[in-house]
Amino acid sequence: MLNPATPEFLDTLRDRLPEPVFRDAGPEHLEEPRGRYRGQGLLLAPGSTEEVATILQACHTACVGVVPHGGGTGLVGGQVMQGGVAPVILSLARMTAIRDVFPSENVMLAEAGAILADVQRAAREAGRMFPLSLASEGSARIGGLLSTNAGGLNVLRYGNARAQCLGLEVVMATGEVWHGLTRLYKDNTGYDLRDLMIGAEGTLGIITAAALRMAPVPAASGSALFHVASPRAALDLLALARDRVGDTVTAFELMHRQGPEFLIEAGLDARVPLDPLPEWMVLMELGLPEGLRPEDSLAAIFEAAVAAGLSADGVIASSETQAEALWAIRETIPEANRRIGSISSHDISVPLSALPDFIEQAEPVLRALGNVRINCFGHLGDGNLHYNVFPPKGRTREEFEEIRLRVKEIVHDLAHGFGGSVSAEHGIGRLKVDDLERYGDPVKLSMMRAIKTALDPHGILNPGAVLRG
Amino acid sequence: MLNPATPEFLDTLRDRLPEPVFRDAGPEHLEEPRGRYRGQGLLLAPGSTEEVATILQACHTACVGVVPHGGGTGLVGGQVMQGGVAPVILSLARMTAIRDVFPSENVMLAEAGAILADVQRAAREAGRMFPLSLASEGSARIGGLLSTNAGGLNVLRYGNARAQCLGLEVVMATGEVWHGLTRLYKDNTGYDLRDLMIGAEGTLGIITAAALRMAPVPAASGSALFHVASPRAALDLLALARDRVGDTVTAFELMHRQGPEFLIEAGLDARVPLDPLPEWMVLMELGLPEGLRPEDSLAAIFEAAVAAGLSADGVIASSETQAEALWAIRETIPEANRRIGSISSHDISVPLSALPDFIEQAEPVLRALGNVRINCFGHLGDGNLHYNVFPPKGRTREEFEEIRLRVKEIVHDLAHGFGGSVSAEHGIGRLKVDDLERYGDPVKLSMMRAIKTALDPHGILNPGAVLRG
Repeated sequence: MLNPATPEFLDTLRDRLPEPVFRDAGPEHLEEPRGRYRGQGLLLAPGSTEEVATILQACHTACVGVVPHGGGTGLVGGQVMQGGVAPVILSLARMTAIRDVFPSENVMLAEAGAILADVQRAAREAGRMFPLSLASEGSARIGGLLSTNAGGLNVLRYGNARAQCLGLEVVMATGEVWHGLTRLYKDNTGYDLRDLMIGAEGTLGIITAAALRMAPVPAASGSALFHVASPRAALDLLALARDRVGDTVTAFELMHRQGPEFLIEAGLDARVPLDPLPEWMVLMELGLPEGLRPEDSLAAIFEAAVAAGLSADGVIASSETQAEALWAIRETIPEANRRIGSISSHDISVPLSALPDFIEQAEPVLRALGNVRINCFGHLGDGNLHYNVFPPKGRTREEFEEIRLRVKEIVHDLAHGFGGSVSAEHGIGRLKVDDLERYGDPVKLSMMRAIKTALDPHGILNPGAVLRG
Repeated sequence: MLNPATPEFLDTLRDRLPEPVFRDAGPEHLEEPRGRYRGQGLLLAPGSTEEVATILQACHTACVGVVPHGGGTGLVGGQVMQGGVAPVILSLARMTAIRDVFPSENVMLAEAGAILADVQRAAREAGRMFPLSLASEGSARIGGLLSTNAGGLNVLRYGNARAQCLGLEVVMATGEVWHGLTRLYKDNTGYDLRDLMIGAEGTLGIITAAALRMAPVPAASGSALFHVASPRAALDLLALARDRVGDTVTAFELMHRQGPEFLIEAGLDARVPLDPLPEWMVLMELGLPEGLRPEDSLAAIFEAAVAAGLSADGVIASSETQAEALWAIRETIPEANRRIGSISSHDISVPLSALPDFIEQAEPVLRALGNVRINCFGHLGDGNLHYNVFPPKGRTREEFEEIRLRVKEIVHDLAHGFGGSVSAEHGIGRLKVDDLERYGDPVKLSMMRAIKTALDPHGILNPGAVLRG
């Protein structure tokens, strides 16, 4: 049983923590982007790992819950606790230092509050790249990105957030600090606690800093937008491209026509330079070694795709500006979705070869529920679709509230039936706790509960997230 | 407290398990490659996941230890239990099926007993590659490779065993089966138990099958052996190569002259085609996309390296046969080491930029101990050195027994002092339990013990490996 975080409890910390730690919680700490949850709690904003440790030790002793808060961009309510006993909201936003950069090692040490765009910039300044890239990179923070094992646009080639991390510094529920901030690429000394903390959404420990791996910048990069005959043709195109250029394919995004149409409807100005607008499109990026021109490699792939009947139209960016314009289409779709307002949004993955069947089978079942629109787009090469269901033009999501849960159930049941996941990259948070219980392997769930109890015996860390409190 | 595995205990299983499960333990189950440990126990060789579950349930109930056994190639005694209470030796060698191959997904399902070379072959037959590659690939089995998070030659580009695995089927200590054999590239539903099991050396569960990811085959591959002026020059060469061809550098191995000299001394016939034999050499492999000739890319790298004063001699393989001859040098060194017999062998890693300092500082301290020879070689791009210390020519390791522990201590202390690891890829097993206690972070160790108790409350799984029993 947890006790509430009260002003009196915070007062007991005032002689151990400097004044800047004590701040008022603002809307950014109490709301989440989709407006599904409204949080509560008292804010503490430590400036160092030691201060985080002091806070956790006190919360552990007093059985006070702690909800960690990074950039607040999570989409599943992991960052806000609605109802229950008021927690401490632990903001990492003051711990933004890039502690060190080791260009010759391709390693950077960043604190949990460092914003992704700043980490990317630090890598660029060192002549390297930090491959994690996603729509919220201007506000998402490293601690949250690791805690949710964020995905994004470059997972196909570089892996998700987990793959970008070599080591962690973590404050445990008891306030003890695990100094695991290694710069080693290989270290087989004991259990992989790094990967256990990554994706645990702050329920097993508070990440305070990370050793991040940077990647070499490809000598040349290029992008193209291709029409594809179908989702299956898109998969064949991916295989064809990889047969030719291997895993220099750094991104491979599928888009249905609905996405670009939403851009127009929402008054956003990214435009597809293909006429007529194809039903299905693929946005592809190559990162190539010295000696190859991306336009040539993309043209060869396009010709082979046309010869194989996979594609009939396409545009290859001939400059970085053109490439950015193509990527703006893809990256603006989430904002269009937000403006239009979905009935239900889903972040599913299925085994790659089942993806066309999933798309084929989901649509008629959903249309049978009502006159809905489907915006299906996402990271095809990872088997990860953002499969979002919208009201018809001129109507609002509120009018479809009664079918919302049924829509979600249909999409999730179908993905699960194909051996898929109901959260490919967004995590569980509070939104999908029921889904995890419904679809998760029971032995996995009982292991998760055993580990949670072992590492956080009072259950203070992000109560109610991932596992029911 | 564990009970011994007795013939009577095995008899209680005879009505629940078919006859082929009951076999006599052979030398292959009781010895390990370096002859440091001699095992004991009674053998069971289940043919299915259900049979593994039946055995573990019985062992859990009766508090009988279980030592899992794959190919038996581990170098740290994880596969043999010497002394203590006799365990069941659980051989996975009968579970060798490649259950399924999904070329369009780059995924394969293999049972734990599948031999690495067979998995590589199955990938090749599907037009793909399975990148894990190491000296013992003809006998090492997938379950053991994952349980030890094996490394090898291609970690630089493809990551270690962990990075090749999408999902696992695991029998828990209680006999419950976690069905986590997913073919998904992205799945953020709950804690990362896959990576917790990988590298746990059979102390948290028994891996019975794995979903493995295959990689596209590069359109063209090529290898070269370059003289390098020093280990620091080797690091600069790696950075230079990656600036030009990015991470199409698939392997980058450092060798000291001592290695090729050992090949001659041991009567093995791989030869370095450089005259005079350089003190330091690098063996590099590129895996390139369509449109580039590896010889051209390697020649451009060589020219730039010469211009930068990093290299003065080199040979670029002009055929696959020549490339194989170059790789035979590197791959035969471990056999030469075995024949000559080391005083102490080490599998250390340090942060990349500290590697030249480590090499510089270790040598004089070791030479001060006696007239020893050092064979330093390994996966430079990963910061991982096999740093092995040998007696002078004509003398034997036994004559140096009294300095063995001191040698190990010097090497491990120095690596640890640089923020390094005392087991980069071989794991802890039973050989390095003391080292883990000496060098490991105490908070990490207490977390490991808490997790071990949570998942294996009777302590039956691989007793005494990784954590003291």
